[in-house]
Amino acid sequence: MNNQAAQSATGLDVLHHCLGPAASAWPQANGRLLHGSEPLGDWLKRSGQSTPAYVYHLAAIDQQVAVVRAVLPSNLHLHYAIKANPNQRIIQHLSRQIDGFDCASLAEMQQIIAIAPDKAAQASIAGPAKSDDELAFAISHGILINAESANELRRIQALAAQKKQRARVALRINPPFEVKGSGMKMGGGARPFGIDSEDIPTLIRQWQAETSSWIDLEGFHLYTGSQNRDATALGAGFRAAMDLIIELSQACDFTPRHLNLGGGFGVVYHPQDAPLDLAALQPALLEVSATAQTHWPGVRLNLELGRYLVAGAGIYLTRIVDKKTSRGKTYLLCDGGMHHHLALSGNLGQILRRNWPIIAIDQLNAPCTHPFDLAGPLCTPLDVLGQNQELPELAVSDVIGVLQSGAYGLSASPNGFLSHPACGEYFLRD
Amino acid sequence: MNNQAAQSATGLDVLHHCLGPAASAWPQANGRLLHGSEPLGDWLKRSGQSTPAYVYHLAAIDQQVAVVRAVLPSNLHLHYAIKANPNQRIIQHLSRQIDGFDCASLAEMQQIIAIAPDKAAQASIAGPAKSDDELAFAISHGILINAESANELRRIQALAAQKKQRARVALRINPPFEVKGSGMKMGGGARPFGIDSEDIPTLIRQWQAETSSWIDLEGFHLYTGSQNRDATALGAGFRAAMDLIIELSQACDFTPRHLNLGGGFGVVYHPQDAPLDLAALQPALLEVSATAQTHWPGVRLNLELGRYLVAGAGIYLTRIVDKKTSRGKTYLLCDGGMHHHLALSGNLGQILRRNWPIIAIDQLNAPCTHPFDLAGPLCTPLDVLGQNQELPELAVSDVIGVLQSGAYGLSASPNGFLSHPACGEYFLRD
Repeated sequence: MNNQAAQSATGLDVLHHCLGPAASAWPQANGRLLHGSEPLGDWLKRSGQSTPAYVYHLAAIDQQVAVVRAVLPSNLHLHYAIKANPNQRIIQHLSRQIDGFDCASLAEMQQIIAIAPDKAAQASIAGPAKSDDELAFAISHGILINAESANELRRIQALAAQKKQRARVALRINPPFEVKGSGMKMGGGARPFGIDSEDIPTLIRQWQAETSSWIDLEGFHLYTGSQNRDATALGAGFRAAMDLIIELSQACDFTPRHLNLGGGFGVVYHPQDAPLDLAALQPALLEVSATAQTHWPGVRLNLELGRYLVAGAGIYLTRIVDKKTSRGKTYLLCDGGMHHHLALSGNLGQILRRNWPIIAIDQLNAPCTHPFDLAGPLCTPLDVLGQNQELPELAVSDVIGVLQSGAYGLSASPNGFLSHPACGEYFLRD
Repeated sequence: MNNQAAQSATGLDVLHHCLGPAASAWPQANGRLLHGSEPLGDWLKRSGQSTPAYVYHLAAIDQQVAVVRAVLPSNLHLHYAIKANPNQRIIQHLSRQIDGFDCASLAEMQQIIAIAPDKAAQASIAGPAKSDDELAFAISHGILINAESANELRRIQALAAQKKQRARVALRINPPFEVKGSGMKMGGGARPFGIDSEDIPTLIRQWQAETSSWIDLEGFHLYTGSQNRDATALGAGFRAAMDLIIELSQACDFTPRHLNLGGGFGVVYHPQDAPLDLAALQPALLEVSATAQTHWPGVRLNLELGRYLVAGAGIYLTRIVDKKTSRGKTYLLCDGGMHHHLALSGNLGQILRRNWPIIAIDQLNAPCTHPFDLAGPLCTPLDVLGQNQELPELAVSDVIGVLQSGAYGLSASPNGFLSHPACGEYFLRD
């Protein structure tokens, strides 16, 4: 969708371009988003459910999992990175469709043990500065720990010895290379994440020489970056990761049983952007999978996706409370804002804010020809929802929806900022 | 403090440069921050109180209020903008020292009614997209409403008529000018805030002609921007605001009884920056105050400060959990991060992140000669606490403190991001 096309696009066009196949999972008829058979806008009014709110649709997750599964070789396992959206019902739903979970905190591990205890063996934890509580919980529950430093390895050993329980560990590798096109880089150069690749062989040899180790060294974790829509760059990154893992393993005659190659599949946050071409990525996925099995038959190979599985399954709904013109600009002032959706306001890692895909939930077929500036209720100029954003004509009390809000939305936002009311989370019926 | 000086400065130097007179309110001895007579670091260990935590010191607020009062003419009233820090004890403490409160949400108004009901008549609410609940609550409790649009005026009139209670209203003016040096602009050009100044006379005349109005139009609110350390620019802004208010009032023979000139006094977030020179600002404050009394004898004139009163009264404490070297950089990995302190990570309105003033709480006299990269526990490259930041030599389990954290800290951060443990808030004893 180029600029010209985007300007005359309808909400439905934007939905389909940004979400791809998952767009069809969102129920809609006669240009209106539905909740069951009822227009969502009518349901909101009738039920007294208030905006702002996040609405999720589990069918959109199913659709996205199917899209990913279609390009994965059968022995490449699909994990969900809970940090993308820790909503309990989403975790429950995904637990029946995916092969494991990746956690980033004690509470995330506790969620897995509570919701999907059968998945504990396929759960892992990663993150710098892990607490003793986190390490001890992982050891107790047989959760794989992605170790981020030599010092952390020593702490794991000490805790495991104290508990007299073996610790399952993978070394998180900080590779010497970066991957082009990643929205956020998590590997290459100096990093807080992982262990510099050049230091890995020494650590493995020390572990091999240790006669009283409480650590089971199962393999490696290598995550180069997130939000990458460039299939060529992503594929090259996976191949380079596999080459590096082969080199490191051969250097010290180590046989990994477990490899997490990360993820980083990017979604379309801006209607002008092209989606990730999964079909173009498939050859690289097949190749690294085959390579791994050739070198280490039976090795478990995981991809860890968060955002890509759930972003399209969430829409942030906000109602227009006031409409006014200020020196040539028309403002729609909304009841939702940055306290619920920090990324939308351009304050979650973005250098320059760009407009997100926003739809008028009751005018999906109307061309987006009216430029509006959208702001939230917070008394700060940071509370921006859209700038010169093309939408259908809208009036006070109309509801708009921010697409791609299923990941890094509510949980990644400063909910208490300015002490505005809490935000609801609803699940739509088919 | 220039770059060279900052590099060999001690933590105490940084504290004094950034906080000014309020620095002396923080108890310290022998190079250690104190809690009562005990080193804070020892108290944290002994009491089992955990990091990360915000510690506040009310004496630093007293000191800052005194510094401001010293340059204010007696008929220029001092209000606190609660959004800077809504901690109940801070509001309670300030309620005995200042003249009124400015609210930005229903919950903030409810706090005032609960904590300082005697201040309700000197409380106001501002913000775009106010809800009916907010407007109705303000009307019921006699809280002044800063109206942000013609449509909001109509809503206030309708609600007041329905309740048969008069509404106290000030018109928030969007001036035609911006003020140089403000960190965030809230006036000038097209804005979601306030009513364009050129539209004000018409609105006043309509109100004057209205025979059944439930609105008491008391005056004006004009807030040009925040975080400004340029006394000349701030002073010029206050003078320009007063000129504009005179012009608008004379145009329709309106006598304001209430004027809120905003605030915007900036604090030192980066040790290289110069503090705001309050003495240089004083002549402008005296002048606008005298001008107001000349034109409208008995008019109530308010300044609304948030950050400037409380920023220096808070320190964010975090403990070093891991220390490691990655390709030439030494990382201190901490138990606190962006989920508690979004602004510190550079993700609250900043385009380019700059280092904050950070001290080693047990080495205040040691020169800051070691460059460290500081990161938090979140598994994201956004969780940055410091980059190439000069500190004394530090080891695992040492505690560092981020100065100027009393405003827009915990409440302005995504506390739930990655589901890490909640953050404590403690008050230090003298």
